[in-house]
Amino acid sequence: MRARAPLVQCITNFVAMNTAANVLLAAGASPAMLHAAEETLEFTPLAQALSINIGTPSPHWAAGMKAAAGAARAAGLPWVLDPVAVGATSYRQALCGDLLALEPAVIRGNASEILALAGAAARGKGADSADPVEAAEAAARALAQRSWAVVAVTGPVDYVTDGTRAWRVHNGDPMMPKVTALGCSLTALVAAFVAVEAADRAEATVAALACFGLAGEIAARGASGPGSFAVALIDALHAMTPEALDLGARVEPS
Amino acid sequence: MRARAPLVQCITNFVAMNTAANVLLAAGASPAMLHAAEETLEFTPLAQALSINIGTPSPHWAAGMKAAAGAARAAGLPWVLDPVAVGATSYRQALCGDLLALEPAVIRGNASEILALAGAAARGKGADSADPVEAAEAAARALAQRSWAVVAVTGPVDYVTDGTRAWRVHNGDPMMPKVTALGCSLTALVAAFVAVEAADRAEATVAALACFGLAGEIAARGASGPGSFAVALIDALHAMTPEALDLGARVEPS
Amino acid sequence: MRARAPLVQCITNFVAMNTAANVLLAAGASPAMLHAAEETLEFTPLAQALSINIGTPSPHWAAGMKAAAGAARAAGLPWVLDPVAVGATSYRQALCGDLLALEPAVIRGNASEILALAGAAARGKGADSADPVEAAEAAARALAQRSWAVVAVTGPVDYVTDGTRAWRVHNGDPMMPKVTALGCSLTALVAAFVAVEAADRAEATVAALACFGLAGEIAARGASGPGSFAVALIDALHAMTPEALDLGARVEPS
Repeated sequence: MRARAPLVQCITNFVAMNTAANVLLAAGASPAMLHAAEETLEFTPLAQALSINIGTPSPHWAAGMKAAAGAARAAGLPWVLDPVAVGATSYRQALCGDLLALEPAVIRGNASEILALAGAAARGKGADSADPVEAAEAAARALAQRSWAVVAVTGPVDYVTDGTRAWRVHNGDPMMPKVTALGCSLTALVAAFVAVEAADRAEATVAALACFGLAGEIAARGASGPGSFAVALIDALHAMTPEALDLGARVEPS
Repeated sequence: MRARAPLVQCITNFVAMNTAANVLLAAGASPAMLHAAEETLEFTPLAQALSINIGTPSPHWAAGMKAAAGAARAAGLPWVLDPVAVGATSYRQALCGDLLALEPAVIRGNASEILALAGAAARGKGADSADPVEAAEAAARALAQRSWAVVAVTGPVDYVTDGTRAWRVHNGDPMMPKVTALGCSLTALVAAFVAVEAADRAEATVAALACFGLAGEIAARGASGPGSFAVALIDALHAMTPEALDLGARVEPS
Repeated sequence: MRARAPLVQCITNFVAMNTAANVLLAAGASPAMLHAAEETLEFTPLAQALSINIGTPSPHWAAGMKAAAGAARAAGLPWVLDPVAVGATSYRQALCGDLLALEPAVIRGNASEILALAGAAARGKGADSADPVEAAEAAARALAQRSWAVVAVTGPVDYVTDGTRAWRVHNGDPMMPKVTALGCSLTALVAAFVAVEAADRAEATVAALACFGLAGEIAARGASGPGSFAVALIDALHAMTPEALDLGARVEPS
């Protein structure tokens, strides 16, 4: 990652913009946060991966997301979809339907979001999940098979599947959902991992989740609350080495 | 608050978006930061309260604010107005006029903003107040009586009135105005308190102001400047208990 | 700076909004982050300086930038241009062409951006420079002579020129490019310095760069990574005194 410093375009929400860029920088990637349809057709093909998070959508941004995803598909560039609160409004459902048709390489969401995206009943309110990860595993497999995307359901224990293989990632810390935009930033990190490990997008996704969760475990050691935890998480990502990740990753095939 | 975890929709400015979400999470609420008219009519009735801050307005956002406030009023949902720099431009004055007609439950601003909103002469420049809190007390009472809203004027000592009763809140720290978006985040916190203590919106507002100010006092103890202060404030909000708030609140009827 | 507390209007990107406001507050300035064409004609003449950063452009924001720059020029107000990733898309090139015609007092960018703005070949990808500062010195001088603006090329060693005189600023720390939005925030700080030291805009620019770089050096002493570094940088800016700046500035005429 640090040797390649992949250029990752992020179209994300207003809440996550700064945190996602800092997460990418700390991990060794080069973030590019542009979003407008007016310039993305020209820019996206220059990137190594694209991350799209629909957190604070509006018509102009939705147009930019679709233009960027289309440009990525045309250029053979992997892109990652984060369907924030997709079950909350029909506007989000329609937008995600359009984006799914543009063939994301990876989809990352919480259990309620993956359930809603797969067309199942979900109970999420706002951006928080009201469903446990296990409840979304079958939906994740079905969605992966239908969309040809790797699907990651994140929560206390993450579940990743490409429709055939599956993994559970046990890394993470209970403080993580107490800091806003960490899920959104993880999506951007998945895009960076997929950019440098394109041969196996499922394994790249698993590695990104383990890396982020392990950084959270390290950050929690010295933190006194979500404020100091968020600061320490960036420090821990920056200090992460491949050796530390190999030692600390807690991944099991499922 | 933590037991109820109220869903609070925030339409706030680009500067405050991340901080306001983290303040709500640290306090135990569940933030939802969506703003577009295209989806807010469907979403707002699902929330327990709404917070609107006009800090970085534009036509599309203004339309979303009015749609959300209208949906909140129709659903009987309390909403809080933060009229940032309302005296600075006629665009903001017109927007706040439209929003006032949609009956906010609480209005929170600095002295210059409350003076301007009440139609009095104000001297604020940008988002900072140039008037002392005391100079806005009569305007706050008049505005509360005219609008049926609780009005909170924040500054070194805060003043809260529902037009009949009034309180002064002495909590806070001089470092707070040195960190951007803390006033905006306080507005979101007021919405969260009003969501869980709907029976008396004035007392809920007073409690939110005391809680935020007390967290500031605690944060200041170990901080070496506004950077570390902002981090410690989130930690202090997260660690706050009802008992600590009862002990530390410095509120007097006025 | 602290005695004058200049009102600095910032039209910046979504990533930098919060950080830039906190940098201005820590340095003693008063930030105003409004951007819409609908209100900027009325507001800009009230400010003491204007900072425009094109980082996340779109048509509505571009219109606001041009309106604000035009209002600043009409009012004799100095304004600073940050041409983020101008070489990346023709949309950014056209926008910067329009903005250059509105006569910025200072232009600050990395080497790739200044090369692209001056019409030379640049190799930057996204917002990061792929060219060394030295490679952009001749382009900076030519751009300064053509535009009558002070041009600052920032990097490991900064280069500042007004087309006749030139300086190198050696302050800074290798951690600075690992935190997003620091360049954008520096542009806002340059605007604040130019507001209070209008007599010599080149010297004001040099002072802003030295101040920010020195704060970075101080922050690096206790930081364990880019997260804690960003927090400490705000603390260090807030603690900076004119005496400390005089002692720590490492500036040489070129």
